[in-house]
Amino acid sequence: MEEMYGLIGQMKVAEGKRGEVIAAMLAGTRDMPGNIAYMIAEDIEDPNSIWITEVWQTKTDHANSLNLPSVQEAIGEARAHITGFGTRVETKPVLRG
Amino acid sequence: MEEMYGLIGQMKVAEGKRGEVIAAMLAGTRDMPGNIAYMIAEDIEDPNSIWITEVWQTKTDHANSLNLPSVQEAIGEARAHITGFGTRVETKPVLRG
Repeated sequence: MEEMYGLIGQMKVAEGKRGEVIAAMLAGTRDMPGNIAYMIAEDIEDPNSIWITEVWQTKTDHANSLNLPSVQEAIGEARAHITGFGTRVETKPVLRG
Repeated sequence: MEEMYGLIGQMKVAEGKRGEVIAAMLAGTRDMPGNIAYMIAEDIEDPNSIWITEVWQTKTDHANSLNLPSVQEAIGEARAHITGFGTRVETKPVLRG
């Protein structure tokens, strides 16, 4: 069985655009097949930074999600406001038994 | 109302001790009042690194959790194997409405 896959990533956005980017991502990431968790958080210290913690049933599910129409739409809306990416860590999530 | 509070943190552990530290943390972090999520993940690239994403109802709930007997016990068990801490980010989690 393919093992679970996770990502922890930091996204940098243009001044004043964090709320707009988060709204687009929340809207676009509902109901993604194989997604166990998609947690968005605002960085308290950096007003232009967003952190996302993702848990997927498999790495393939994550890869496939990038082609979902809702995700493509979110990326399209967010792209203009994204200024870069910081930390990005691939993980193997450990869920409670 | 006090707002939600989150943490994303990286913990470094001694060679070969990651499984043991994670087991202690999983056991010690069940049933923490005010805890919404406590997600543990193994870093794929660094075999001595653990990432934890936490979501709390309030910052106070997180502070109080550090005094819980189960958490104290987990810290006691893990301490000998922890070699340091890396990234640590305080966040304001954004949950879906």
